[in-house]
Amino acid sequence: MPDISKKGMEMPASPIRKLVPCAEKAKSKGIKVYHLNIGQPDIPSPDVAIEAVRNFSGKIIEYGHSAGNLSYRKNLAEYYNSLGMNITHDNILITTGGSEALITAFCICLNPGDELIVPEPFYTNYNSFALHCDITIVPVATEIESGFALPSIEEFEKVITPKTKAVMLCNPNNPTGYVYSENELERIKELVIKYDLFLISDEVYREFCYTNEKYCSCMDLKGIENNVILIDSTSKRYSMCGIRIGALVSKNIEVIDAGLRSFQARLCAPVLGQIAAEAALKTESKYFAEIRNEYLERRNCLTEGLNRIPGVFCPVPDGAFYTIARLPVNDAEEFAKWLLEEFDYKQQTVMLAPAAGFYKTKNKGINEVRIAYVLKKADLLNSVECLKHALEKYGSR
Amino acid sequence: MPDISKKGMEMPASPIRKLVPCAEKAKSKGIKVYHLNIGQPDIPSPDVAIEAVRNFSGKIIEYGHSAGNLSYRKNLAEYYNSLGMNITHDNILITTGGSEALITAFCICLNPGDELIVPEPFYTNYNSFALHCDITIVPVATEIESGFALPSIEEFEKVITPKTKAVMLCNPNNPTGYVYSENELERIKELVIKYDLFLISDEVYREFCYTNEKYCSCMDLKGIENNVILIDSTSKRYSMCGIRIGALVSKNIEVIDAGLRSFQARLCAPVLGQIAAEAALKTESKYFAEIRNEYLERRNCLTEGLNRIPGVFCPVPDGAFYTIARLPVNDAEEFAKWLLEEFDYKQQTVMLAPAAGFYKTKNKGINEVRIAYVLKKADLLNSVECLKHALEKYGSR
Repeated sequence: MPDISKKGMEMPASPIRKLVPCAEKAKSKGIKVYHLNIGQPDIPSPDVAIEAVRNFSGKIIEYGHSAGNLSYRKNLAEYYNSLGMNITHDNILITTGGSEALITAFCICLNPGDELIVPEPFYTNYNSFALHCDITIVPVATEIESGFALPSIEEFEKVITPKTKAVMLCNPNNPTGYVYSENELERIKELVIKYDLFLISDEVYREFCYTNEKYCSCMDLKGIENNVILIDSTSKRYSMCGIRIGALVSKNIEVIDAGLRSFQARLCAPVLGQIAAEAALKTESKYFAEIRNEYLERRNCLTEGLNRIPGVFCPVPDGAFYTIARLPVNDAEEFAKWLLEEFDYKQQTVMLAPAAGFYKTKNKGINEVRIAYVLKKADLLNSVECLKHALEKYGSR
Repeated sequence: MPDISKKGMEMPASPIRKLVPCAEKAKSKGIKVYHLNIGQPDIPSPDVAIEAVRNFSGKIIEYGHSAGNLSYRKNLAEYYNSLGMNITHDNILITTGGSEALITAFCICLNPGDELIVPEPFYTNYNSFALHCDITIVPVATEIESGFALPSIEEFEKVITPKTKAVMLCNPNNPTGYVYSENELERIKELVIKYDLFLISDEVYREFCYTNEKYCSCMDLKGIENNVILIDSTSKRYSMCGIRIGALVSKNIEVIDAGLRSFQARLCAPVLGQIAAEAALKTESKYFAEIRNEYLERRNCLTEGLNRIPGVFCPVPDGAFYTIARLPVNDAEEFAKWLLEEFDYKQQTVMLAPAAGFYKTKNKGINEVRIAYVLKKADLLNSVECLKHALEKYGSR
């Protein structure tokens, strides 16, 4: 039997993989498990998108263009231009989810062995994509006390080597919910210019901002147009995670050309998903306003509740629908397991994502968890109540 | 402006990329272009699949399981078992097209720098996937005179090195249409055992076989169950290239486990496509019988027509819907360009895929083209007529 490759052996499992069987077991005992661990929104997809799928009238579900359906790219360019990006459909490649956009950006910007700087904690799947492309993620620490604000540029410079080819930001951030300010992005811009780096900007949570300040995209930064690659996705914006439609956007035509050649090999992005995504562009602004208000209330109800529990510290993030909370326990993974295996409060418990998996630096985030507030307020209140009782019972382990 | 990566620079363009603008130009002059160059079937997708999409009744298009929807995997396992494969849904990972299955198989079986042996000519996109995974494809020659039959095992052994980790077959073959016999596969099996290799078997054209012999899958080979990875796709089987649903199938649980970890990072395969694919499993056998007969007639009409043209040689392949034809020209790419730019017969011309792009060895296949017979018979007859007149006019360049 031949050995599988190093990549096959080392590909990391989902950080909650060990907890999944525990959750199943709890459920089999009749315990209600509140899933604070996942990013699957409970918000309905826009009707206009679902209707477009239901109205599919073709006889053959044919290949689409490798860059994405032309009409979708044209309409998508209009959406980006309404945000002030000043692009055309030729700056857009439609991808199979944000995931494919990320993998492709990594492959285009970095050679095997090159380094990508990412503030940590970061979305765990970046690790898998980096391993897939044989590149190295170099983390720069951000701190829970500052709400995970951008570190000083000196901190970035400390880790720059001749192999550094790109910096990546996730804005608004998964897992921290932090939204980078224009001022912070201007500092990143200086770094990018000084070291001639690519700037990969994962902005899939763009619509989920809870302050009244204008959201600043890396695409807005003047003078580094050829350095910036925008990673986008329809998954969260339209609550259509299953359609697997994202985009890679850049004003750098070399990047687009290389991406297109790569995408020609996989032929096209999912055609049915593109139909849903194109239709979703017609979603009324009311839909987003309602969702924003809903998440804002959820965030407030969650973070207020968490911060009232003795020993818990949770910043109040301005974006996305995640927050990192520090718990008064020694090992959040042990606690998360205990919650599912040994605890219930009125036949209810919660499932948490241990935050250590979001840090690349060993032993960081050990007493932190990521919490997604994609549940109804009533459920979030019950979850917080559960957690409070659980922490009391768990004690200072 | 930062340099893009070596991979970004070297990612090959589609072999017909240079010809596409020429075809557009011909069309703009009012010339009808018969596309013999592409593999987009003109056969309708099964009604039952399109209906399932149109009946989508969910409110949220949510993430699916990273391995693929459970019900789809279970039903798909039944399909494979009806072919005698003896597997369960745990042996199946649903992929985003055959493309993702190929890339993932390459990553799991081979480390960067490792070698994969593939008979040439082969599907050009294997080159892109190999570059993506930093592995090397080592070609073994097959010959048009034998209809591109499997070379002797000695030919394979000549190119085996300590870096050889896998052999790949495409069966029925794209671009040659050749169907490997049980006897040939048994020879490959001996090689696989002798050198402890993975055997990656791309069987996406399984339903397109035109002899009455039983199709032999690499999954049927006894004693190398842990070596075999089946690559599958719904694109051609159900004429649903746009749904992007394929599968990676293996009895080797290490392979499945590594694949699943890799797929957890990209979350799930397209959910709408999975709905279509699962429904398509209920397609009546009449559908396939009709398609088979249709393609069989097209193949006969095409190959007979081609072989009647002086100087043209075209094997009569037993499977898929492609054939490689040798033309009496010095450079098939030049000829293909000329057909679009300088020729028409009664305001008609044909677009061919130069076969050199399907060979990795330089200067092979220079006077060959790949022809896809995915057009109606009447169109194929017109195409052959065009080609005959074109070759007469072109002369011995």
